[in-house]
Formats: sequence, C-alpha cells, structure tokens
Amino acid sequence: VSREQAIELARKGRDAALELYFQSLRIPSVSALPEHAADCRRNADFLVEELGRAGLTVRLVEGDGHPTVYGEWLGVPGKPTLLVYGHYDVQPPDPLEEWVTPPFEPTVRDGVVVARGAEDSKGNHMAVLAAVRHAMAAGGGSLPINLKVAIEGEEEGGGNVLPTFVAREAAALACDCVLVLDGGFVVPGVPCLELATRGIVYTEVEITGPAIDVHSGSYGGVSPNPFNTAGWIIAGLKSPDGKVLIPGFYDAVREAPEAELRSWRSSGITEKQILEETGAPELAGEDEYPMLVRMWARPTLDVHGIRGGFTGEGTKTVIPARAVMKVSMRLVADQDPLRIFQLFKKHVESLATAGTRIQVRQLGPPSSPVNFGIDHPGARAAAAAFEKAWGKPVMYTRAGGSIPVAEDFAKHLRTGMVGCGFSQPGGRAHSPNEQMPLDAFHRGTEMLIHLFWEFAELSG
Amino acid sequence: VSREQAIELARKGRDAALELYFQSLRIPSVSALPEHAADCRRNADFLVEELGRAGLTVRLVEGDGHPTVYGEWLGVPGKPTLLVYGHYDVQPPDPLEEWVTPPFEPTVRDGVVVARGAEDSKGNHMAVLAAVRHAMAAGGGSLPINLKVAIEGEEEGGGNVLPTFVAREAAALACDCVLVLDGGFVVPGVPCLELATRGIVYTEVEITGPAIDVHSGSYGGVSPNPFNTAGWIIAGLKSPDGKVLIPGFYDAVREAPEAELRSWRSSGITEKQILEETGAPELAGEDEYPMLVRMWARPTLDVHGIRGGFTGEGTKTVIPARAVMKVSMRLVADQDPLRIFQLFKKHVESLATAGTRIQVRQLGPPSSPVNFGIDHPGARAAAAAFEKAWGKPVMYTRAGGSIPVAEDFAKHLRTGMVGCGFSQPGGRAHSPNEQMPLDAFHRGTEMLIHLFWEFAELSG
Repeated sequence: VSREQAIELARKGRDAALELYFQSLRIPSVSALPEHAADCRRNADFLVEELGRAGLTVRLVEGDGHPTVYGEWLGVPGKPTLLVYGHYDVQPPDPLEEWVTPPFEPTVRDGVVVARGAEDSKGNHMAVLAAVRHAMAAGGGSLPINLKVAIEGEEEGGGNVLPTFVAREAAALACDCVLVLDGGFVVPGVPCLELATRGIVYTEVEITGPAIDVHSGSYGGVSPNPFNTAGWIIAGLKSPDGKVLIPGFYDAVREAPEAELRSWRSSGITEKQILEETGAPELAGEDEYPMLVRMWARPTLDVHGIRGGFTGEGTKTVIPARAVMKVSMRLVADQDPLRIFQLFKKHVESLATAGTRIQVRQLGPPSSPVNFGIDHPGARAAAAAFEKAWGKPVMYTRAGGSIPVAEDFAKHLRTGMVGCGFSQPGGRAHSPNEQMPLDAFHRGTEMLIHLFWEFAELSG
Repeated sequence: VSREQAIELARKGRDAALELYFQSLRIPSVSALPEHAADCRRNADFLVEELGRAGLTVRLVEGDGHPTVYGEWLGVPGKPTLLVYGHYDVQPPDPLEEWVTPPFEPTVRDGVVVARGAEDSKGNHMAVLAAVRHAMAAGGGSLPINLKVAIEGEEEGGGNVLPTFVAREAAALACDCVLVLDGGFVVPGVPCLELATRGIVYTEVEITGPAIDVHSGSYGGVSPNPFNTAGWIIAGLKSPDGKVLIPGFYDAVREAPEAELRSWRSSGITEKQILEETGAPELAGEDEYPMLVRMWARPTLDVHGIRGGFTGEGTKTVIPARAVMKVSMRLVADQDPLRIFQLFKKHVESLATAGTRIQVRQLGPPSSPVNFGIDHPGARAAAAAFEKAWGKPVMYTRAGGSIPVAEDFAKHLRTGMVGCGFSQPGGRAHSPNEQMPLDAFHRGTEMLIHLFWEFAELSG
C-alpha cells in the first residue's frame, strides 16, 4: 500500500521534482576545471540540503578535492541495505559554440531537457532525491529498506575523495547491494542492467624537440619536430585496423562468456543505431569482432588532442618546441591498469626519434575494469523494478565507459553490484546539447520507488 | 667623396635612425591575424611618410590585402637601377608568456634590441631608410644610382598585393638587380650572400570522423577517431629517418653543384652552432646528407600543429569530431609547388581510414624554389659593400626559408638577384624574444651606402 502511495505522490509531485532537477542543472559543476571548484562545492551543499530535507542524515565528506555527499537512513535494522552511487560533477561544456541553448540554462524542447549534466548524471541522482522524498512520505517517515547514498564530485575529473572514503569507512558503508547509478539505456525504451565496466588509463605524452619554436625554413630538415614524432608515436601505438601495438597489451584480456555474447546478439542494437548516435560515416576498429564486443569486451586506445604548435588562422611556419598529447586506453577484465600503464610508457619511450625527449605521465587515477555479477538479490530487484516502471523486461549489457569508483566498491565492500541509469540513446553525454527526456526522469523516479520495495521483498 | 660624407652622416645620425627603427617596431603589423589589419596599414603609412621625407617618390600599392609601399628615385638616367625588396609585416608573437619584455615594446639589453620584427625584417628596411637619407644628403639630393624600393606587408601571412603589382608593372619595376633584403648572417660577423631560397607549400588537412565529439567509453573501439588518423597520416607522409614518403616527391630535386657544396664545407658552420640556436638535444633528418645540404638543398616536411580535440587541463574522454592539421613542405629547385601539392593531396587522401573523411587545402600562395645566380654586377657590388662594412669577405649560402616574391621577381623581371640581410645567428626569427644587435643595424646602414656607390662603379 505504501508503495502505491509513493508512486501516486511521485506522479502528483512531478513539477516540484523537475524544479529541483533544473536547479541542480544550473550549477556548472565542472570538476576538471579549477575555476569551477566553488561551483562543485555549491552543488554539494545543495544536495546536502535537499537530501536532508528528504529525511536522510547527510554529511559532506571532505578530502583533497571536491567533496562527496553522503546520506543514510538506517531505520529498519534487519532489513537489507542498499547503497546508491551517483556523481554531481559534469564534463566541461566546450565547444560552447555548438550548444543551441547555453549549457547551464536547462531548456525543455519537445519533452526533452537540454543541459550539461542532464543525463550524465544529474538526471539519475535527482530522481533518487524525488524517490526518497515520496517513499518517506508514503511510509510515514520510514523506508522499506535501509538506504545509503553517496554522490561524489570527481567522476569526470578524477580524484580521491570518494575512494579514500570508501577505503576508510568500508564498515560504515557495508550493504547488500551497490546500485551504481551512472548508466543508461542502449535501446530506446528497453531498460538495461550493466554487468561490467571498462577500466581506463588516461595519459599525457609530452614530446620536446627544439628548446624554442624555430623557423621551419631555417631549420626544416635538421631540427627535430615534436609534432612529426607525435604522429610516429600514434602510428606505433595502434594500427588503422584497430589493433593496439603495445607489446603485452592483450595478454590479460578475458573473452566474454557465451551467455553474454548471446544476449548481445539478440539485443537488437544495430550498427545503424550507433552510426546515427555518433554521426560517423562508418564504423572503425577491429572488424573481426562484432560491434558490441568491440564496445564492451575489447580494450582500445584513443588520442584526445595534442596541445602545442600553431593552430590559429592562417600560416605560421614554426617547428614547435613541444607537443603534449592526451591518450587514453579503455581496459577490460583482467587487464591491470598499472601494468598497462607501465607497458604503454615503456613502448612510447621506445618510439622517441632523433632529437626528441619524451615524458609519459598518468592523468587522474586509473580505473580497473570490473565485472559486477548478476546472481544476487539487488540485481534481481532492479530488474523487477525496471520492468514495473517501463513495462518491459530488462536487457543485460556492459558499460563501455569507466566508473572508477566501481573498482573501489568491488575491492572494499565485496558485495553485489548492479549498474543502471535512466538516460536514453542519443543523449549526447560529454558532447554539446546533452539531453534527457522528462519521461525518463519521471519513470526513473518510479523505478527507484519500486526498487526499495522489491529489494525488501526479495531479500526478506 | 660623397660616399665618405654619407658614411660620416650615418655615424653621426645613429640615434635618429634608431628612433625611427623603434617607432616601426612599436607597430604590431601581424599580417596573418585579421585583427591587426589596421596596424599593417599604419606601418605602411609610416613608411610612405618616412621614405618620402628621405627623398623618394612614394605611393601605396593597393590590392586585396595589406598594401605594398613603393618608392623610387630615378634621377640619374644611364646609371644602373637597384630594386630593394623588404617586408614590414611580422609573425604573430605567441606564445606571449615566453617573452621577457612585451613583443611590441622594443627594449635594448646589452646592445641588442628585443622585439617582434627586430630582425625579420624591420631591421633590414629601416636601415635602407637611413642609408637613403644619408646618401641623399651627402649627394645634395642625388643618389649615385637609380633606386626602387618595394616593401610589402604580406610576406609572413601570404597575399597577392605585391605579386600582382610585380606582374602588372614589370616594366616600371625594370632594374639591373633585385636586392632581396630578408636574410641574414649564418656565422657571427661573417656577411653572407644567398644564392637560392627554398619554396614552400603550406597545407591544412581536415580529418572528420563522428559528427560530434563522442564519449570514448561508449564508442571507443567502434568510432573513427580523427586524431588517431592524423597520426597515421603523419607516419604515412614522412619516416623517422627524414624521408618524405609521398610518391614522386623527390623526382625533380636537383643536387647542389660541387662548387656550392665546397663553400658550405669550408663555411665553419657547425652542428654545435645549430644545436645552440635551436636548443635541440641532437639533430634529426636525413643523416646521409651533410647538415647544410639538409637545410639548404633538400626538401622536407613539417607538421605545425593540430587543431581540435581536448587540450586543456585535466582529463576529458572524448573522441573528437575533427582534427585540422597544418603541414608544410619546403621545396628545392626544380620542384614545382603545384605538382607537389597535387602529389601530397592524392597521397594524404589515400591514407584515409575507416569512418574518416579527409579534405586537403592549400593555405596562402605556394612559393617556388629560386636559384638567384651569382655572376652579375649586383651580387659583386653587394659582396664588396659587405666587405667594406664588416671588414670580411662574404660567404655564399642559401636560404632554407621561402621568399615568395623572389619567385615573382625571377619570373617577371628576369634580372640579377641577390639575397642578404643584417640579422645575426640566434636572432630568434618567428620565436619569442626575437632580437637584433644595434651594431648590425648600423653596419647594415653603411653596407647599403657602400652598395649604392659600388653598384654605380661596377656597372659603369
């Protein structure tokens, strides 16, 4: 009865829930840019205030970076405990000129809200806030399960505040399932549960040549050129057919089990869909592997940009003094990020050419690939809750991206885990005009309400 | 007698000459940046004013770009005519943070003036202004030769104003020698005359992949990545041992004659000197060729920068929608720039990888390599004048860089040509803290005065 009342309250309270969601989207909580540090804290304070108002006991977890918001309600000893993870920080909004409306002024068009963070990931944890408020109200100040909520501010930029917290207070965070709420749907309208994430190692390769930018007429033919060398390094790291050329890179790669491969084959996710989402004229990569295997179960390597040299309008004939290249690798179980970074560094250093010096460094903390497991009450409850909210059975997937903290949860909490989220295909995470359908936000709120009760029943 | 008087006047008038030189250095005449167009015009107006005051008949030559300043004095029919070429435009000053003093506030330290344009090339043509003023005064309003002066504003940025003028008014520009005054010394204190310039083709290669920047977690392994492809293209254009890999690239390369190679071997220019000038830890390039051959008589290819992607602080996990790479090639006789661009374009297009599209365009006008010739009165007069001003015989060199207009002079005027200038090694053309010794400026003024009289005598 309380469950139905909570759902009823959620439906009546949609405008109020959206208002809070939009308030959070107006905060430019860009964790990677130092000039937005105060905005990150403002977002954290906002969550402390609102989660507290909803009935949780909330505190800011401080550390060397952006704070984590931690709230809990432990009013039903003996009942299972769910830990919900989210992040309030967002990616930088550039290139700004490609946004149709300003990134931090949420705008609704055709039932879709457009803003940085709309789907990644404010649309997820602001639905948690709504669900807790309504479930508490329906239960007379009580929830059917014990709830812990950890919302960090360093998912997009890297940081140690939440990992340190998890390691230090693992006992306090003990739970029966972690809901890693930072994912989404891969087929429109079909909820999905993620069984694994890829890890990441993000690096910066600094190549120096001449001590100053020099004239390419005067010195072309004898001066080392760090940008030429950057090209040779890229070509030495990966071949055009998608193979990473670092010796030992693939040694620990575990193939996906046949059961997962089968579910991917019947997923209905088509190459056409991925081409539409990315706008690429055709796909690239290891064409001996099916598309979803390449996205979910194969490691890869991408160059993100190269700082230095002349990139303005017109012609400037310099041989640049330096090129600073950002390169990351996506990893799958059982690749170890530290081992992979060592192999990468050694290989890149071996690619130095005459007159160049190379420095290789890691940016942000590396993240291990994690397999979540599916055979536990939390995952079953989430599947049931999704089916109730969307009217369709879930599909099982993996996340191609990294959730660094999933590794910490796996290591310190040793409990069931499940990844999911409410974003829809084409939501443009990390890109201009990021968006989230309002319907997905509202159904997500209801899914979470159902989850509280399903988890209580399934674990009972 | 007039010659000695002019030299005497030059020595007494050094402060006034420097004042005018510094006035010109304060004008940020950066031709490649649209926001400095008015500054370029201001520099041209300044030269019209001052060359007119010195006794030339001066006019602005207008066209689709920055104006050329043209002045002449034709008061001694029957005497030879010298055409002096210079440019008043300068390279962009970035990176600004590496300048010890602001680039457009000339500052003298230890007898050296530091400013953008100090040596490339305001120190050259402002010495012409001083030489004309003093020679006119010494000659009672008359010079020993007929003089034409063309100072353009598009050498660094590319443009058609001067080339159009040369083609259109070739008859009016007729002369017995062109003094291409945009070079300098390669050994400290040893004047040199240049016998050739390298040509240039400057290109922009735009590589597109996904229509928008996409998440490297979600799409890494299937999305094309324009930055990865940029690396494969660079590696396909040139090998780490300095060989350009474009089919047909070397077909028209003419080897330097033994006489030139001999003079280079005895030049005293050492690898140590070039390493000190560039600050590179060692030289790169085709090590089967001597250093000076690589700098002066071999073509090459350099990447100047790659626009796009994420290059800010921290980590952003995007696969960029596009990479725009600036690449130029230095050419030697008899490589044809149009033919080389065609070969380049075809080869780069052949290097497109799955899911990428490539557009190749030329930036600025291409420039042909030019051999100037040494056996003509202008070159002999310049050699004699340099020896009088510096007290040492000249050495013969080539210019590794391009002087696009030398090609137009060669084509339309069909006369003797000689390249030289007063800048000294380590002058940092195109780099932060560009500089010119005041002594070189003053001796350069005297060299030009000597040249007027030597040319009159040698051609008599």
